Amino acid sequence: MRWSRSFIQTLREAPSDAEAASHKLMVRAGLVRQLSAGVYSYLPLGLRVLEKIKKIVREEMDRAGAVELLLPAMHPAELWNETGRLAAYGDAMIKFTDRKGHVNVLGPTHEEVITDLLRNANLSYRALPVNLYQVQVKFRDEARPRFGIIRTREFIMKDAYSFDADGAGLDRSYQAMYDAYMKIFTRCGLVFRPVEADSGLIGGDVSHEFMAIAPAGEDQVLLCTTCRYAANREKAEIGRARETIRQEAETTKLNSIEEAVTPGQHTVDQVAAYLAVQSTDIVKTILFRTGGEFIAALVRGDHEVNPAKLQRAAKVAKLELATPAEIEKASGGPVGFTGPVGLPVRVIGDLAVQSMRNFVTGGNRLDLHLKNVNSGRDFQPEAWADIRYAKEGDPCPKCGAPVRFTTGIEVGHVFKLGTKYSEKMKCEFLDEQGKRRPMIMGCYGIGITRIAAAAIENHHDEAGIIWTKELAPYQVEVVSVKGKDEKIVKLAEDAVATLEQAGFEVLWDDRDESPGVKFADADLLGIPVRVTIGKKSAEAGTADIRVRTKPDQKPVPIMDLAKEVREAWNGLEA
Amino acid sequence: MRWSRSFIQTLREAPSDAEAASHKLMVRAGLVRQLSAGVYSYLPLGLRVLEKIKKIVREEMDRAGAVELLLPAMHPAELWNETGRLAAYGDAMIKFTDRKGHVNVLGPTHEEVITDLLRNANLSYRALPVNLYQVQVKFRDEARPRFGIIRTREFIMKDAYSFDADGAGLDRSYQAMYDAYMKIFTRCGLVFRPVEADSGLIGGDVSHEFMAIAPAGEDQVLLCTTCRYAANREKAEIGRARETIRQEAETTKLNSIEEAVTPGQHTVDQVAAYLAVQSTDIVKTILFRTGGEFIAALVRGDHEVNPAKLQRAAKVAKLELATPAEIEKASGGPVGFTGPVGLPVRVIGDLAVQSMRNFVTGGNRLDLHLKNVNSGRDFQPEAWADIRYAKEGDPCPKCGAPVRFTTGIEVGHVFKLGTKYSEKMKCEFLDEQGKRRPMIMGCYGIGITRIAAAAIENHHDEAGIIWTKELAPYQVEVVSVKGKDEKIVKLAEDAVATLEQAGFEVLWDDRDESPGVKFADADLLGIPVRVTIGKKSAEAGTADIRVRTKPDQKPVPIMDLAKEVREAWNGLEA
Repeated sequence: MRWSRSFIQTLREAPSDAEAASHKLMVRAGLVRQLSAGVYSYLPLGLRVLEKIKKIVREEMDRAGAVELLLPAMHPAELWNETGRLAAYGDAMIKFTDRKGHVNVLGPTHEEVITDLLRNANLSYRALPVNLYQVQVKFRDEARPRFGIIRTREFIMKDAYSFDADGAGLDRSYQAMYDAYMKIFTRCGLVFRPVEADSGLIGGDVSHEFMAIAPAGEDQVLLCTTCRYAANREKAEIGRARETIRQEAETTKLNSIEEAVTPGQHTVDQVAAYLAVQSTDIVKTILFRTGGEFIAALVRGDHEVNPAKLQRAAKVAKLELATPAEIEKASGGPVGFTGPVGLPVRVIGDLAVQSMRNFVTGGNRLDLHLKNVNSGRDFQPEAWADIRYAKEGDPCPKCGAPVRFTTGIEVGHVFKLGTKYSEKMKCEFLDEQGKRRPMIMGCYGIGITRIAAAAIENHHDEAGIIWTKELAPYQVEVVSVKGKDEKIVKLAEDAVATLEQAGFEVLWDDRDESPGVKFADADLLGIPVRVTIGKKSAEAGTADIRVRTKPDQKPVPIMDLAKEVREAWNGLEA
Repeated sequence: MRWSRSFIQTLREAPSDAEAASHKLMVRAGLVRQLSAGVYSYLPLGLRVLEKIKKIVREEMDRAGAVELLLPAMHPAELWNETGRLAAYGDAMIKFTDRKGHVNVLGPTHEEVITDLLRNANLSYRALPVNLYQVQVKFRDEARPRFGIIRTREFIMKDAYSFDADGAGLDRSYQAMYDAYMKIFTRCGLVFRPVEADSGLIGGDVSHEFMAIAPAGEDQVLLCTTCRYAANREKAEIGRARETIRQEAETTKLNSIEEAVTPGQHTVDQVAAYLAVQSTDIVKTILFRTGGEFIAALVRGDHEVNPAKLQRAAKVAKLELATPAEIEKASGGPVGFTGPVGLPVRVIGDLAVQSMRNFVTGGNRLDLHLKNVNSGRDFQPEAWADIRYAKEGDPCPKCGAPVRFTTGIEVGHVFKLGTKYSEKMKCEFLDEQGKRRPMIMGCYGIGITRIAAAAIENHHDEAGIIWTKELAPYQVEVVSVKGKDEKIVKLAEDAVATLEQAGFEVLWDDRDESPGVKFADADLLGIPVRVTIGKKSAEAGTADIRVRTKPDQKPVPIMDLAKEVREAWNGLEA
């Protein structure tokens, strides 16, 4: 394919608002162009990458026994009301009223639509399991689209949905998808980790995310420094504090509770400095509202409450931070001075607080804190539970070794949904006894467009993109310098034909540009193998082969070009 | 592929509201399911057909020098305001306001988006021509979605856009697309005709539609009974009336104009009966409004005004039928009694009226008509023009032979846009003199989903679909009867493996169903070649081969299965 006919538009400058390396490079290399906030066009080179990704995904999905179909993007809103998710998605869901006055939504995901399809199929247990997938456009009105195509309002997803007759079937379906995902992201050349994840709006009990490890990642991922444990910060459990600490706590003498006037000191840092204690000597009391009731969460001064964990510990469906007015009403004191002593609401304490002794808390009055507070004696939470976010250095829940954090881009997510959708929507099958039972579901997503960005995050250098073998939009780039010399043009044309004949996907930079511009663009585009045809080719019958990852180039006889390029290609790592 | 794992759900009954054969068969064969009015899911079998169509389209587009990209579905409304098409599309355009308060639309087509992309690319004449295409989902809020996937609110289109430096370039680009379309629809096995067409909301001067000739077609297509002329009824020109008729008219004596009281007679048929004349002796006067002005169109009593033709003849941008109140105000008389004599508005007469003498018209007063009216003497239109729809039997504009009508499904449409979009949106290039000039555009659409329906309209019988070779979702269906006999299952499994090895796409009906059900379903699905493995296979080592288009089946030794199926396949027409 000739460059001059491929609509490849490279740019010297990245957009001024681009932060992520992949965003800068995708725009500069002419893979994408922004149409509006979080809405992108995929130019020919970018689309070729997407097609490579789709091909890998389809091959592995088919191999795992899933079958492809295609669901519509616009759905009647009523369908989403059956599961209550129309309200749950809120502003992120794009809605419109059609000319007949019906409200429609643009699908951010397709659980409702596929469940509707299956409930109308009248399946018996003999027709199960079924695993259906699609590669389709999704719409989410993100509050803050960013990082180029990493967080957008319109994107391409592969989403699969499995339907089983029982839990053991779901386990098998889930594992098959998990294994397929491992293969897919490996073939895509990503530096990635499967991590335990929170199920969020999709729901269900068990879920794993597949995280490409990259600085532009929006997710915080916790990795054990010793074992294979990995989890999203939203989900990560915290290992038990070591027995020694607990024993120490049990032998500590309890001092008498004291009032401490703390004028204007309402943050943990302020109180610690004012009372000359450590933040680890302070217990923060955070008030949440759920319906008409309040719940107080107690965490150590240097810890943060994880609302998802608190929600599970408190067994409530939804939590919101209490407003300053609500805090005053519920505790008697202003924001910054709340404490568990005498607090007339449900109290749940974090496990790290359980072993603390003689600590500082708010006094539920303006400018008042309490010292030498002790649980059991001064207050009693209704439960002790893991309700905080993990921190760098916390013990791994599997092996106790310290954990570390990194950032990840969520490229895939698998969920065991169970009967969350099938019960609400009456998606049933006939079992061996002829009884109607809800299907057991799983769902499995991959961000096709996001993989392209993640791959670039993982593989680039100062000069540009470094495509891995399976995702490269072309495998070989032929650069002819100078482009106007007829003899050189003819040699380049022959070289392209020879390489295409040999089965390579070849891009030919046939432009009338200087060698400097062409080589810089070749580095920017990142095609794995570069072949230069120039004066030496015409005079000595040689071409220069360079692979993108190495600085040196190798002159080879043009006669042997296909063989030499094959060798260079085979020598590439992935 | 095993039927039992393919989510193929056949039905005995078609939906009660299904009119078109393709609609009934697509639902019954499990190719599609309706989610809401005009919104369909493509089940695995249906998607396989779409993929076959896409493959053909992509191959021919690539071969014609077009390059694929992918544009977004959601567009900022401002972009559509630049060309005035936001208003022009009206209710057919789906709009929504996003969380930032911006109005977005879902693209019914992509001229604005691609023109925006090109104007920002800063191209010089050396980078032209460019022809970019995409295969993408489109949204149109149709007033009356119907015929299954023929007229839907969400559908898949291939749309291409060419950009040239001059008119000669556009002619070449247009011809290349026209030729590619001929190949595409031929490969898709359609019974089709390219026809001259009206440009409608897309605009431009020249356009052709590609019409699959089928009873479920919504378009009326005019075909010459002698030459190759073909046109959409919206566009069709009418050949000149023969000279003899004109001469006859010129020698006819003009009688004196007379008033005729016609109480309550306001339709052509009523007036003809009341005055004992033919409808061809009457001239209808139809009033249109354009802005604040009125235009009267004169056509023979048995003819119909074509508003698109009238609009061009009157050189106005938009026309609407006048309301009864407006007619009364403009003419002085009620609906049904309008006539050109003394009518104080612009009058345009159809060519067929030009040669009429002593005709009947309305008298611009209640219950009054005029007899022996003659143009020139009693009134003078500002112009004579072809402003009516062609009729069965009208002379062909190319050769004068009579035309006939048929119905067609529009599967493709190509347009010479010229500078309609590039001027309004300032999509310019630098010419050889370094001067900025608007690009000359063409656009080219194919309804991917619609082709599937058109193919079924063209190829089916009482029992079901008859797929042509290139569109068939599978090439061979292996039917094993009875499905539970282990020996037969093993033979079927081997046959499938052998045929797949030989390169065929094979569907294996492995269900535990009766032979009757399986054969009926095989006919319904319409896979070109059927191979039956049954008792005879186990006992005599033979399988039965049947092609879908023929009633008889041929027993062949299982040993020769691949060779025999190859022969049957090669013997198929298309």
